Amino acid sequence: MLPFTGSPLDRRSDKRNDPAWVAERLVGARILPLWQGQVLLTGSPVLKAAAVPLEVAQTLVTPQGVMVFLGLEEGDLGETRAIFAFDVSGSVDAPEMLKSFGAFHDLRTASLLLRHKDLAILSQAKGMIEWHSRNGFCPRCGAKTEVADAGTKRVCPLCGTEHFPRTDPAVIMLATYGERCLLARNVNWTPDFYSCLAGFMEPGESIEEAVRRELQEESGIAVGNVRYCASQPWPFPAALMMGCYAEAESDALTLDPTEIADAVWMTREEARALLEGQIEGRRGPIKSAIAWHLIDGWVRGR
Amino acid sequence: MLPFTGSPLDRRSDKRNDPAWVAERLVGARILPLWQGQVLLTGSPVLKAAAVPLEVAQTLVTPQGVMVFLGLEEGDLGETRAIFAFDVSGSVDAPEMLKSFGAFHDLRTASLLLRHKDLAILSQAKGMIEWHSRNGFCPRCGAKTEVADAGTKRVCPLCGTEHFPRTDPAVIMLATYGERCLLARNVNWTPDFYSCLAGFMEPGESIEEAVRRELQEESGIAVGNVRYCASQPWPFPAALMMGCYAEAESDALTLDPTEIADAVWMTREEARALLEGQIEGRRGPIKSAIAWHLIDGWVRGR
Repeated sequence: MLPFTGSPLDRRSDKRNDPAWVAERLVGARILPLWQGQVLLTGSPVLKAAAVPLEVAQTLVTPQGVMVFLGLEEGDLGETRAIFAFDVSGSVDAPEMLKSFGAFHDLRTASLLLRHKDLAILSQAKGMIEWHSRNGFCPRCGAKTEVADAGTKRVCPLCGTEHFPRTDPAVIMLATYGERCLLARNVNWTPDFYSCLAGFMEPGESIEEAVRRELQEESGIAVGNVRYCASQPWPFPAALMMGCYAEAESDALTLDPTEIADAVWMTREEARALLEGQIEGRRGPIKSAIAWHLIDGWVRGR
Repeated sequence: MLPFTGSPLDRRSDKRNDPAWVAERLVGARILPLWQGQVLLTGSPVLKAAAVPLEVAQTLVTPQGVMVFLGLEEGDLGETRAIFAFDVSGSVDAPEMLKSFGAFHDLRTASLLLRHKDLAILSQAKGMIEWHSRNGFCPRCGAKTEVADAGTKRVCPLCGTEHFPRTDPAVIMLATYGERCLLARNVNWTPDFYSCLAGFMEPGESIEEAVRRELQEESGIAVGNVRYCASQPWPFPAALMMGCYAEAESDALTLDPTEIADAVWMTREEARALLEGQIEGRRGPIKSAIAWHLIDGWVRGR
């Protein structure tokens, strides 16, 4: 199971639109505070999501701070408990006030040290809270929108349009040509970083067509067979990464210099060494990213 | 290749942000007019996308009417020609003015009669034009946004945020249990219509997790193995349908009455008869929908 997936929560979409049911769930709930894009964590060396009591969280939530119901979790004794995310970004003192519960961390950096299920829950929390922070107005009419259904949607009071969280589908692919795979460095990445090519889907495409278009645009290679492998939610800020293997029809590269600084065909040995950090001056993707798993799967002959 | 996919256009994302290049492409371009959600078609019995000359299209475009560069097409003589979509919704007379070129039709209804590549191009056109019509304001700050990059994005002049077309990833799945598959009728569908279960993905899920959640929520079945099959852009209004097969772990159903009016386990013979319109009082999905292809593939043992 890929990192960022595997949430144990039951989202209860049948109940979260009932304010009375949601209010009852708040009593005794685990409250996960998010502050300016960061998540509250505790523990060492393995990090866990840190929860705070409702009374504490409520003192930190400003009028702009949204509360989101994430789902129900089964406790150790078989009891169910609700989990909520609270946006406490408006309280400059939040890190100080909550230091007895944990410290705020960047989720991507912490992803390698977090328990699998906590990473999935915090990924959902971060995605939802940041969606609210970027979507306070109705794109159809420009009016201020209001939070509804325990933070799982927004509604425009003027034109009535309902707005649901946006997820941008993106393709990420390992192109292979015989016994070599294509790893590239985006112009926006650090000079030592090599990974799979990737890009957002455009309207009117299938996943397989988007893989072909992106590889053609960025590396100039034509692609034959495309095989879907796995998908991963990637809340930085709101992508769904769909990982594929793509069989290149040639190894001649024509890079798009506005996007790709360098691209290299690597053997299985070289790709394995990249993942293991054994190539001087070159880094591969972090182990929590689907890119790592695509490359690792190919290196292992899957 | 699934209907709505297979566009022959080269989207030229490297050039469409250059206004001079785009202006040159307009000369001699094929202009596809869209009017109040409908597309202009011609021909019989096979329908084709109807293009109109630039001079004609320009007389019909109102200040609100957006122009979108769709891509370059290779002509019969090897020449390249640009294709644009023009929103002429503001001209009440458009159907009358353009009747010598074609008639406006609903794209979903016409999808079975359209040439494969024209359906793909018109799907992109409809998706883009309707995205503009629903996104005139910045969801971050509420200001009016402006069209940029030949209609392929919008930009907020106040806060500077760039907005790209939204595509909502959705899962659609055929649940199977041994030699039977699950077909259901949504409460919003006509009383005779049965198809695959489907639903929008939520933030923090993989495709496979969304399939399991939707089947659990709507039909109460637990699912083991999930296998991705194919994807299809579905511009009604802006979904990406990701088709999967899901192995049910039991055939006991607990339907969600707010979503599902009825669900039936069908044998291969029954599912085949449904697709062929041979079950009295029951209709299956139209042949242009991925649901038809998922069911057909299973019926054929794929």
